[in-house]
Amino acid sequence: MKILNLDLGDKSYPIYIGQNLLLKGELLTKYITGKQVMIVTNTTVAPLYLKKVQNLLSSFEFAQVILPDGEKYKTLGTVNYIFSTLLEKRFDRSCTLIALGGGVVGDMTGFVAASYQRGVNFIQIPTTLLSQVDSSVGGKTGVNHMLGKNMIGAFHQPKCVLIDIDTLDTLDNQQYSSGMAEVIKYALLVEYLNFFNFLQENIKDLMNRKKSLIIKMIYQSCQHKINIVAQDELETGKRTLLNLGHTFGHAIENTLGYGTFLHGEAVSVGILMATKLSHLEGHLSSKQVAKIQDLLEKANLPISIIGKINASAFMKAMLVDKKVINGNIRLILLKRLGQAFICDNYNNHLLDQVVNEFCQ
Amino acid sequence: MKILNLDLGDKSYPIYIGQNLLLKGELLTKYITGKQVMIVTNTTVAPLYLKKVQNLLSSFEFAQVILPDGEKYKTLGTVNYIFSTLLEKRFDRSCTLIALGGGVVGDMTGFVAASYQRGVNFIQIPTTLLSQVDSSVGGKTGVNHMLGKNMIGAFHQPKCVLIDIDTLDTLDNQQYSSGMAEVIKYALLVEYLNFFNFLQENIKDLMNRKKSLIIKMIYQSCQHKINIVAQDELETGKRTLLNLGHTFGHAIENTLGYGTFLHGEAVSVGILMATKLSHLEGHLSSKQVAKIQDLLEKANLPISIIGKINASAFMKAMLVDKKVINGNIRLILLKRLGQAFICDNYNNHLLDQVVNEFCQ
Repeated sequence: MKILNLDLGDKSYPIYIGQNLLLKGELLTKYITGKQVMIVTNTTVAPLYLKKVQNLLSSFEFAQVILPDGEKYKTLGTVNYIFSTLLEKRFDRSCTLIALGGGVVGDMTGFVAASYQRGVNFIQIPTTLLSQVDSSVGGKTGVNHMLGKNMIGAFHQPKCVLIDIDTLDTLDNQQYSSGMAEVIKYALLVEYLNFFNFLQENIKDLMNRKKSLIIKMIYQSCQHKINIVAQDELETGKRTLLNLGHTFGHAIENTLGYGTFLHGEAVSVGILMATKLSHLEGHLSSKQVAKIQDLLEKANLPISIIGKINASAFMKAMLVDKKVINGNIRLILLKRLGQAFICDNYNNHLLDQVVNEFCQ
Repeated sequence: MKILNLDLGDKSYPIYIGQNLLLKGELLTKYITGKQVMIVTNTTVAPLYLKKVQNLLSSFEFAQVILPDGEKYKTLGTVNYIFSTLLEKRFDRSCTLIALGGGVVGDMTGFVAASYQRGVNFIQIPTTLLSQVDSSVGGKTGVNHMLGKNMIGAFHQPKCVLIDIDTLDTLDNQQYSSGMAEVIKYALLVEYLNFFNFLQENIKDLMNRKKSLIIKMIYQSCQHKINIVAQDELETGKRTLLNLGHTFGHAIENTLGYGTFLHGEAVSVGILMATKLSHLEGHLSSKQVAKIQDLLEKANLPISIIGKINASAFMKAMLVDKKVINGNIRLILLKRLGQAFICDNYNNHLLDQVVNEFCQ
């Protein structure tokens, strides 16, 4: 088992990464304060892992909420359903919530934990690659609004993150690829751990789910993430870099409707759009663009939305994003492979050109 | 004009108290970051003060939301309506929300500000006595759930609080009395500023709305509040004292339905219930109980719920409260006049006796 620590002063917490962690009760229970525990999970994950985690919690007053599976249920309505259950079960401020599932379950459970009685404890047990490398770490919580993705939420850090990579055994290939998009994102952002080369060299074995490599990949992804979050918890600066590909990606998800593209699939296209714009802006070489595209393709990720969205709908959706400041769309671009930067003075014609190329 | 400062490190902010403040644009605008401002108010306050405040904001991109008036609209549904308006107007993370109204408007606007795009700035302009002496200061935000009052929310501090006491000119007597309940609460909690005597001596003039005395009363109430909040922003200790009468009061509001009793009216009965239990527990003398009851009555506040709620419904509602920890109802009681304490080892039979006396 490997352990990382996200250093946020009195909100610091550990991230455990390894196999068989869902069999180790003490890892989980030492982060539970109070007597009441509720697991929030979904209909896909519950039959696989709910009983296993529940078995670790025999000494607590236990409750569970099983949600329908999918990004389209990440709404204020679902959050209110969880509030109702907490209140019906008389859960008080000393309770602990456990998010058992992917990013949707984690984001919603975290937001409920942030808002229930003005804040209770929660623990993340991510079961998808995407949530293990990205969304379970860093305290971003929230839900979607009909008019924009993740528009309602809070920063609320978990007490610990428990990443049992054995849960990936039951993850289908499309979901696994979706997680790979966020992994590849880290490799592009900063030069650290020689991560891009590691991914290039091992992409075949990683897609074949070689566990020793998966642990290394998740560990290094989380290292990338905590390095950035520790410097900028509330995303007033450097953390924005983690949104590489996301403003484009959110526009895809918003326009097509949640669920048509998985989050990571939309981010994959978004990364490539940011990459191409970076190239047109005179930063990345076309060779580097090709290398990035090649890696995304080898991870079985989509690289185009041609025929799916028209350019004007896409641009309109881009404008509803948390990176829009005073009407300007702030984008994350790449100076080169391994050096992302926040850009709000790109050439709008070049942005149009990229959007038209991808949306024709 | 008087100024107080709530000291919370980098979340510190000023509280301005005086007359004609809604005519002074610079007081407001210097706390607005970004270009977009939205005023949230209600149908009662809008015709009186919306235009006045809007006039101060001519240099900003302006939007407004006018909500129906009343505690029963303090819901996640109303909050979602505000989110929708913000998104329709393309308000971004740099926007500022202004709460113009009483406690309900302030609590909801604050919660929207806490949750919109994971947090934006907001300013409180309280227009009722209750919100001027209590709810606008300290960063408690939130909404009610069908199963419990203020069960959903966040701690989110405003950038400033602007208390123009001229807005009380349009406040009806029942609402004014409701605010007095929270004022009297401060006088019972701690011995500070000789506040109980001040209220006793001046209750007649205060009820006759003598402005110089009102300013003094609001200033001293806010002093009480900020002294406590500065020591315990997140209510892990001393801030709990501010809930004197509120566990009882919330049970009244929950049982009767929001709006039957105003919040301060429910708190008034709650204060007297806490006072009587304190007496039965051997703390307060019956003379002190009588003094407190007398002051509440002179403020035209209710002191009984006889015939309105039965005892078992009341006890059930008490159990759904944020002060319930591991099944125990934690109450604020009085050692003596001017010394409140957190109590969870009171005699349950005596609590029953008080509830039965008030609910017969």
